[in-house]
Amino acid sequence: MASGNRIKKIRNILVEKNIDALLIADDKNIFYFTEFPWGFRLLIPAEGENILFVPSVNYEAAKEKSRNVRVELIKIGEKASDKIFSEISRRKIKFLGFDRLSATEYLKIKSKLKDLELKSLQEDIWSLRKIKDESELALIKKAAELTSQGMKRALEVIKPGLIEREAIAEIEYEMRKRGSSGVAFETIVCSGPESAYPHGGLGEREIKDGDFVVVDLGAKYRGYCADMTRTLIVGEPSKRQLHMYEAVKEAQKIAISRIRSNIKAKEVDQVARKYIEEKGYGKYFVHSLGHGVGLDVHEPPTLGPLSNEILSSGNVVTVEPGIYIPGFGGVRIEDTVLIHEDKAIKLTDIGN
Amino acid sequence: MASGNRIKKIRNILVEKNIDALLIADDKNIFYFTEFPWGFRLLIPAEGENILFVPSVNYEAAKEKSRNVRVELIKIGEKASDKIFSEISRRKIKFLGFDRLSATEYLKIKSKLKDLELKSLQEDIWSLRKIKDESELALIKKAAELTSQGMKRALEVIKPGLIEREAIAEIEYEMRKRGSSGVAFETIVCSGPESAYPHGGLGEREIKDGDFVVVDLGAKYRGYCADMTRTLIVGEPSKRQLHMYEAVKEAQKIAISRIRSNIKAKEVDQVARKYIEEKGYGKYFVHSLGHGVGLDVHEPPTLGPLSNEILSSGNVVTVEPGIYIPGFGGVRIEDTVLIHEDKAIKLTDIGN
Repeated sequence: MASGNRIKKIRNILVEKNIDALLIADDKNIFYFTEFPWGFRLLIPAEGENILFVPSVNYEAAKEKSRNVRVELIKIGEKASDKIFSEISRRKIKFLGFDRLSATEYLKIKSKLKDLELKSLQEDIWSLRKIKDESELALIKKAAELTSQGMKRALEVIKPGLIEREAIAEIEYEMRKRGSSGVAFETIVCSGPESAYPHGGLGEREIKDGDFVVVDLGAKYRGYCADMTRTLIVGEPSKRQLHMYEAVKEAQKIAISRIRSNIKAKEVDQVARKYIEEKGYGKYFVHSLGHGVGLDVHEPPTLGPLSNEILSSGNVVTVEPGIYIPGFGGVRIEDTVLIHEDKAIKLTDIGN
Repeated sequence: MASGNRIKKIRNILVEKNIDALLIADDKNIFYFTEFPWGFRLLIPAEGENILFVPSVNYEAAKEKSRNVRVELIKIGEKASDKIFSEISRRKIKFLGFDRLSATEYLKIKSKLKDLELKSLQEDIWSLRKIKDESELALIKKAAELTSQGMKRALEVIKPGLIEREAIAEIEYEMRKRGSSGVAFETIVCSGPESAYPHGGLGEREIKDGDFVVVDLGAKYRGYCADMTRTLIVGEPSKRQLHMYEAVKEAQKIAISRIRSNIKAKEVDQVARKYIEEKGYGKYFVHSLGHGVGLDVHEPPTLGPLSNEILSSGNVVTVEPGIYIPGFGGVRIEDTVLIHEDKAIKLTDIGN
């Protein structure tokens, strides 16, 4: 089973790095290794039994639905940290990896277990999570399909007179009806001058003739996300609108055609950025070109100027150039793509 | 303006505790003090100018929409941490409060700025956020009203043959159409034996005659949340179902009638827990009685056995006893209430 293989892989990393055990706090990481979304902490030792600490509210569900672990109950009124600390002591763990630990927790562990050495292994977990396995790809593809259906609905309903929020209602309804388990992020429908804000506004504006309308949406399916943006021009486009739109569309096309295994992520960002600069909009492309997508809607690898990542077969990333002109409006075009050895395949798409 | 008052109050705390400045990372905390949701970091000094660090993607929106701050741009390709560290050095800050800092960030700051003393002020921020001001109450009331409308829709549509997810689609559509800005959490519709799992299942089960159906939903309105649960019995209720249902309903009623300012939160939990124990279901009430609601859907004060909180006028909390019998099913009834001096007022409600 896929999640069993993931456990094997992280254990190999533990052995390689001489770490006795890994303590996992992040929900998505816990789900990745156990297929259960509501664990409190997961302890994966280099060898021996994995323990999922679960409060009583989710204990019965965890016993039924979690994989690869023994479920340890935290009863109402018990302190989770006491149980976890005593398990770490009992197992004589000296080197403990962690994924996410707050400064407060870190200082508490340090004061309770003075001989324990702590080391962040989040990057090692990302090294696994970035390469999607077959079972993950099936879920991401389903999320992408639902996302495309939501976008198709957006294109049908958006017209002058509609409130942005009403379009969002239709999009999310469509995705839910067709099987989505929720949204990957709050759907954005953002029109007119506010389309120049990449994250949108309140959703309360009435769409007008001549508007840019940026529609950014993503379905979630059994934990996995997809992400897609289209920009509509309502009514007759102006020359300036068309020029911006074509620049973004071509930048996306060029960037996607450049993607393959073993290319630097920042090189793909650079290709799109350079094209947009040449078209005269360089200072209006105010974000990175893309980001990884999986259990989190924003995860590594980032496609941006500061990224040190090398792209790899099995990565799923967005490609989303944009141009945002304050007071005028914005254009963004985004698809979620799967990276193969020699090319990238769009997972989100709408028939055109 | 409300957010200006919040800044004044946190500055008083800084002065009182001899802290030079507070560095805020949590989105909700940043929104609380600036009315802007997408800042990266907020620096509030005991005196002088507040600085909101914002990456270029949200810079134009921040200049337009943020309050009480100077907006400092983090350009594409610039490292945010460098800018923030140099601002801390420039201002000769020696005692820095923080709200949320990862162990990794903590260690990085400690190694870069060796003389800096760090102290968590998250509890102090909660001491403010727990007491809702008038402008917050107006938004929470609106969220609660939308939530009740979503629940009304659930009661209309749930019947044998409907897939859980289809009910969720109707609920969320109704709330969006009426004005919600999104959901406070993923809507739960959970039927039959899976209703014994408080957090539900995949939403893919067909509702059947004789089922318990737990419906747990919350609208969000301009950042603020509400939270509400009802349990339906589809068709003719059995004696056992009715007995469980009545126990939960009465436990909620007793708990709400006990709430007032200056009562211990755990005492309210205890009242409900004792009643459910007396009815023979003690071991099936597997979670705390409630939690605070505001910008986060789960926030302090917790109403549970381990809580050290004293409830106070201006708190908004849920009251949600439940009984979950593995293999049989579950009942939960939940409302969001506002605490006054001498009583609690339900903000969520459906006409009955």
